[in-house]
Amino acid sequence: MKIGILGAGQLARMIALAGYPLGLDFIFLDPSVDACANQLGEHLHGDYNDPVLLEELAKRADVVTYEFENVPAPVAKYLSEHTRVYPPPKALQVAQDRWVEKNFFLELGIPTPKFALVDNLDDLTQAMSTLGYPAILKTRSQGYDGKGQSILKSAADLQVAWDLVQGLPSIVEAFVPFSREVSIIAVRSVSGAVAFYPLSENLHKGGILRIAESRANDVMQAQAEGYVSRLLQALDYVGVIALELFEVDGQLIANEFAPRVHNSGHWTIEGAETSQFENHLRAILDLPLGSTAAVGKAAMVNFIGGLPETADVLAIESAHLHLYGKSPRKGRKVAHVTVRAANTDSYRNALDSLERLANQVDDS
Amino acid sequence: MKIGILGAGQLARMIALAGYPLGLDFIFLDPSVDACANQLGEHLHGDYNDPVLLEELAKRADVVTYEFENVPAPVAKYLSEHTRVYPPPKALQVAQDRWVEKNFFLELGIPTPKFALVDNLDDLTQAMSTLGYPAILKTRSQGYDGKGQSILKSAADLQVAWDLVQGLPSIVEAFVPFSREVSIIAVRSVSGAVAFYPLSENLHKGGILRIAESRANDVMQAQAEGYVSRLLQALDYVGVIALELFEVDGQLIANEFAPRVHNSGHWTIEGAETSQFENHLRAILDLPLGSTAAVGKAAMVNFIGGLPETADVLAIESAHLHLYGKSPRKGRKVAHVTVRAANTDSYRNALDSLERLANQVDDS
Repeated sequence: MKIGILGAGQLARMIALAGYPLGLDFIFLDPSVDACANQLGEHLHGDYNDPVLLEELAKRADVVTYEFENVPAPVAKYLSEHTRVYPPPKALQVAQDRWVEKNFFLELGIPTPKFALVDNLDDLTQAMSTLGYPAILKTRSQGYDGKGQSILKSAADLQVAWDLVQGLPSIVEAFVPFSREVSIIAVRSVSGAVAFYPLSENLHKGGILRIAESRANDVMQAQAEGYVSRLLQALDYVGVIALELFEVDGQLIANEFAPRVHNSGHWTIEGAETSQFENHLRAILDLPLGSTAAVGKAAMVNFIGGLPETADVLAIESAHLHLYGKSPRKGRKVAHVTVRAANTDSYRNALDSLERLANQVDDS
Repeated sequence: MKIGILGAGQLARMIALAGYPLGLDFIFLDPSVDACANQLGEHLHGDYNDPVLLEELAKRADVVTYEFENVPAPVAKYLSEHTRVYPPPKALQVAQDRWVEKNFFLELGIPTPKFALVDNLDDLTQAMSTLGYPAILKTRSQGYDGKGQSILKSAADLQVAWDLVQGLPSIVEAFVPFSREVSIIAVRSVSGAVAFYPLSENLHKGGILRIAESRANDVMQAQAEGYVSRLLQALDYVGVIALELFEVDGQLIANEFAPRVHNSGHWTIEGAETSQFENHLRAILDLPLGSTAAVGKAAMVNFIGGLPETADVLAIESAHLHLYGKSPRKGRKVAHVTVRAANTDSYRNALDSLERLANQVDDS
């Protein structure tokens, strides 16, 4: 069985590593000549909307999935007319536009921060008269890892913020005084079986995820499962989904969702019975889902921009290294390390050591 | 860093799957055009002693290792003159010849079954006059999975057994009335760091390993570690080694060793902090060894000759499937499944279900 993946970055790489033991092989479409999943399958090299490559992908792959959500809509449409595409193109369409996404949340009764549409500076000024500072201006599409975002602290920031988004269609969103950020990774198979991972508690810095900790038996688990279930149903979703949430006064508020495997779920490789990558494949192939139960206590630390010596990571007991085969470059995610331990002290010590290493080489 | 591997079967495949997260890539030399590791690296296609391919392998790989022990001696010699080769060629030389291997055990004070050299039918008749029935005639080299072996139950079997080994240089070995078979997987790095996995308790049928169970805190652990340590020292060994032992009256007796990752250690992928495959790579690259501690209770079941439906395996909670990408054929190892569980009941139920599946499709 051949799986086609749009994108050949680290997410595709980890999907492939999870897929070979299931007897699968892989074909990637990616515009980058040295995309890091290329070693693990065939590489169709070119633009995502190259009709010749898309035709080849549709012909050769039994199922097509994607590792990033900015697949052009016509591409998803073309592919879904010629082969099976999961998650469904509708999920892409919603996730690609923050305005559509936020309204979709509200229709499903999932609370969001207050927000308003901003097509010009007047819209922004008008919105801020009711929204209250601080707030965040975000382009409706193409943003990730904090890109295309600008914080508004007072009326003096309006012009600068608007210039920063370069006049692109945007939304402005009230800042939420959250006590923490969590995400829930869920998975739904073709025949509708659903499973939820324990919550991840996430630490961002500069808009980039730094640490995600597994949270077995978190008090917010049930509420998060309830919200993500509504998304799964409404989208007739297939595959892994990640819903990012803020906790405010003991309530969860949706930030955004990603229709794909997610950085905050990387700890599941060692810290859950079945990884998010394997369960994504099981889901899109309509195989029984694997247990999402926690194995020990686990956390993931991202390495951004720089890498420590491999030996320094491996010397940390309980550390599991995942290099992406990418050369270090400012702001680039080049590796993650999972800590997984049965014992709280070992866990804490390993996590402290890793955070120190990550900070030493950080170039974000 | 590029790792060269002689052989591109399932062991090489699992080494590669463990190696990508460490940032490694792979080049395999294998005579089979559809060897199952080929999807995971470059494939040099040809005989192990093809001088052009060996030169290319030596030039391109930073370190060369092997997945099977019948590498021709001149090949190991050539490679070790041009690049680093681990485990050391001396280990190959000993493991390739049961007569040399058994004498090597004895020199190190590691007990073995009684044995004698057999170069002709007279030798065999002579040896059996003192060894006593039952006994096993084995070719000195090239045997694996019970091939090249013949059981002698009485003097009437001598001629048939000798014909079966086709007049090849052999040894005859007293049958050992063992209560169980165990193996110890150990690993030693370039700079001499050593680690031992919990014992595996192994069930063979028809000369082929069927089930290997992890045995944390086994009473025989210390004795097994003592014996394998002598091998590691005497061979100035680097990499993973497996020593197979019989238990007789509370004592261990060596059967044979394999200078490579081993089928009885496959459960370490899920059932140990660090798998034998990752630790083999860490060892030959002189990186810190990873913890060999058990994670839950684990066992591995081999699928021989036939495969069940993937969905039937994945429906078993706690089962982790490892397909080798090989088409089923009589007697061929085509997959293994690891069961790993924190809870004894779950473990036992899953193992029972898997054994049933394995027996249903068995074609060995």
